[in-house]
Amino acid sequence: MKIDLNSDMGEGFGPWQMGDDAALLKVISSANIACGFHAGDPQVMAHTMRRAVETGVGIGAHPGFPDLHGFGRRRMTLSSEELGNLVTYQLGAAQAMARRAGGSVRHFKLHGALSNMACEVPAIARACYEAALQVDPQIVLVGLPATAMEAVARELDARWAGEIFADRAYEADASLVDRSKPGAVLHDPAEIGPRIEAMLRAGAIITESGKQIPCRIDTVCVHGDTARAVDMARALRTHLEGAGIGIAQF
Amino acid sequence: MKIDLNSDMGEGFGPWQMGDDAALLKVISSANIACGFHAGDPQVMAHTMRRAVETGVGIGAHPGFPDLHGFGRRRMTLSSEELGNLVTYQLGAAQAMARRAGGSVRHFKLHGALSNMACEVPAIARACYEAALQVDPQIVLVGLPATAMEAVARELDARWAGEIFADRAYEADASLVDRSKPGAVLHDPAEIGPRIEAMLRAGAIITESGKQIPCRIDTVCVHGDTARAVDMARALRTHLEGAGIGIAQF
Amino acid sequence: MKIDLNSDMGEGFGPWQMGDDAALLKVISSANIACGFHAGDPQVMAHTMRRAVETGVGIGAHPGFPDLHGFGRRRMTLSSEELGNLVTYQLGAAQAMARRAGGSVRHFKLHGALSNMACEVPAIARACYEAALQVDPQIVLVGLPATAMEAVARELDARWAGEIFADRAYEADASLVDRSKPGAVLHDPAEIGPRIEAMLRAGAIITESGKQIPCRIDTVCVHGDTARAVDMARALRTHLEGAGIGIAQF
Amino acid sequence: MKIDLNSDMGEGFGPWQMGDDAALLKVISSANIACGFHAGDPQVMAHTMRRAVETGVGIGAHPGFPDLHGFGRRRMTLSSEELGNLVTYQLGAAQAMARRAGGSVRHFKLHGALSNMACEVPAIARACYEAALQVDPQIVLVGLPATAMEAVARELDARWAGEIFADRAYEADASLVDRSKPGAVLHDPAEIGPRIEAMLRAGAIITESGKQIPCRIDTVCVHGDTARAVDMARALRTHLEGAGIGIAQF
Repeated sequence: MKIDLNSDMGEGFGPWQMGDDAALLKVISSANIACGFHAGDPQVMAHTMRRAVETGVGIGAHPGFPDLHGFGRRRMTLSSEELGNLVTYQLGAAQAMARRAGGSVRHFKLHGALSNMACEVPAIARACYEAALQVDPQIVLVGLPATAMEAVARELDARWAGEIFADRAYEADASLVDRSKPGAVLHDPAEIGPRIEAMLRAGAIITESGKQIPCRIDTVCVHGDTARAVDMARALRTHLEGAGIGIAQF
Repeated sequence: MKIDLNSDMGEGFGPWQMGDDAALLKVISSANIACGFHAGDPQVMAHTMRRAVETGVGIGAHPGFPDLHGFGRRRMTLSSEELGNLVTYQLGAAQAMARRAGGSVRHFKLHGALSNMACEVPAIARACYEAALQVDPQIVLVGLPATAMEAVARELDARWAGEIFADRAYEADASLVDRSKPGAVLHDPAEIGPRIEAMLRAGAIITESGKQIPCRIDTVCVHGDTARAVDMARALRTHLEGAGIGIAQF
Repeated sequence: MKIDLNSDMGEGFGPWQMGDDAALLKVISSANIACGFHAGDPQVMAHTMRRAVETGVGIGAHPGFPDLHGFGRRRMTLSSEELGNLVTYQLGAAQAMARRAGGSVRHFKLHGALSNMACEVPAIARACYEAALQVDPQIVLVGLPATAMEAVARELDARWAGEIFADRAYEADASLVDRSKPGAVLHDPAEIGPRIEAMLRAGAIITESGKQIPCRIDTVCVHGDTARAVDMARALRTHLEGAGIGIAQF
Repeated sequence: MKIDLNSDMGEGFGPWQMGDDAALLKVISSANIACGFHAGDPQVMAHTMRRAVETGVGIGAHPGFPDLHGFGRRRMTLSSEELGNLVTYQLGAAQAMARRAGGSVRHFKLHGALSNMACEVPAIARACYEAALQVDPQIVLVGLPATAMEAVARELDARWAGEIFADRAYEADASLVDRSKPGAVLHDPAEIGPRIEAMLRAGAIITESGKQIPCRIDTVCVHGDTARAVDMARALRTHLEGAGIGIAQF
């Protein structure tokens, strides 16, 4: 039994850093690399791509809204055509940067508010995914199970990787518990390992109330923006490996 | 005998347009398309790429400095690494946009201040050209004959297209007469056709004083930023065709 | 009887122009000048401010979302704090630019999607207006009558100028007829003058069905983005003056 | 005897932080706050301004080139008009943000490559300083003694504060020893205090070779980008206070 661990990376810009990418690259198997619109200028992308190649971590393009101020976390109303073009642009840039670093882009994951909107609105997921597939029909779309993302990916007959979050609680409909609610975010490393192991063995998202929602789980998202987050990611990896679940690219 | 006509295109951004791209596409055979840093957001790129594909005009990436305010015309001091990365990023984005439009990027031409600096400083030309060739070893580098650009392109054993300007006078060293000097820019359509024809037949840049500097001439740069410029481009094409010189991609 | 005519101006950026500001300055009495976030870099602002001062046209700050790509016309989800800060920043910049040009900012009008949202959502209008008043308690807020804008301006006891649109039809609730509907935008210069005159004499918005909605009308918004628009603005001014209604700053 | 300590602050952007502003505000008496072009979006400015007001630290505008990628450290070739306008814009924005925070901008210091260029080229210093004084004739210009900055400030009869650097060695002409040379940057907190005390008592920059260059010293620049830098700033303050030199705004 094997699972992929993914994390957002290369989220610096210019002189600014975010997270401890070097530490996280030792833990994860797939890196979602920012493409310049919400974070990640060409310098940052180049460094991150090179490190990912050196450590054998899979490279993914992680496009977002053109909003540095808001780090791509503010919703913007774009047409399907605009969405398709901004995805194409960012993915193309990422491909060339990956090639320059001696690697290649194998997966695709939407960032921030764009990701949230693509979970809810099929037309948004479709605009983004069609554009990505036009650039590379073999690219693996990484997204949330049981959302518009998965539905659209299936309609498009695309390669798909279902993702769960290491530290987030789930509602009965497989959506994430809103961050404003108590218990929405899990903080105890000792709790997270067994919980994720349980979901993987069940082949299902396990909700707050204990209900199982069967779905395809290919990768677990971990964070690296704080020292504590890196520790939690490490603890999760250690637990899974101890339980006989290897960490490997989807 | 054949020659290519090229022009910068897709130089709008957001709601802003520049030049009459539609008119110019009927005149030229190669389009240098802005890549988002000094002009040309993803929407503008998409429209321009599509039009170029529809009219059979060759697509080129036309990267510049990250300076919308200054339209890439203000000199910036970047390291070789920064130059390489910004070229790679923009070229990669252009490739994906071209693919989405049903075409492909076949040539590469630097824009504005970056172009001027690459003519003067071999290290700058090298940083940009190496990056472009790493993305696509077959790409045609378009640049000014008898400059650092040509020297570096030859050292790199790259495909090369030498470019002359339809409306600019040349100094004795093959450089352009500074715009501040009288006669630097030619305005008479009746003069431009015979002059370019003479250069093509001579296989040489002909300077202000009438001296011939033999060089490879593959393409002639025309402008489209004003109605008058489009008229001049049309007049040049008409003259060349009348003189038995066909317009075709290099 | 007097009325103000206002128009958005200074909506170029870098090398790009929009509209015929010079022509329009001869027609209007108040200019809403873009402040750099959706259009209008410092150079463009400086030129526009100077022209406004020279022609005696009142200067207004016209802030928008930080979205050059989308010209501030794409909705973005910002917190009240973010809205307040971006308004403060842009208004402060406009004040200094106006001072440098020998003038001063006397009114304040929101742009694009930010304006639309402030019409609908009181909290958005409040965040923007409170920020503007903190910078200058005497500034005149220009906005749409019978919307959240007016309600908030009254609550804040601010100086207020109600605005109607020269070329837009109104629904029964004083909102603008959606642009997608037939008749939403008026194109006949001969029709516009009498229609605006009627509203001014009635002291009311007159809806499509002929209903009168009494409100305070201090200024009429005209456009200058096309030659035709400038002609319409001129025709409106001529009609009003012919009817004995002078054009003067509110 | 009293001296001011200044530091660059508010150099985050969007989600990114730089330096420990909170710690540094307890050490310094004047804060040079980034104005949005090379760092410091409106949110970051607002937070920084508020903290400065709360701690009684003097607020300065710290404008730079429009270059987030390069953090304003890459040289750009701008005309005097462009320089004047970008300074005016940023200073105006800073004034409004300071007012919103309950304070006001009392000094002005150029950032990064723009500062370096203004030290060397009088026309650049003049374009920037004239613009600043037009916005506020009473503003204190902070700059390097014995450079084009000081010469221009004197010509303009402006309020002036001469600045030395806590951790940089000086050449015989009062310029900073190039960072690439050994000894250019001082790292020993025990050394820095006595050295700055000596300069203050001498009323002179003391060069590497021990030569004294008499000049007006009003403020000492310290850094806060690393924990070590904050420690050094603290050590300097402690030393100076121990030597009977109070820390107070110029």
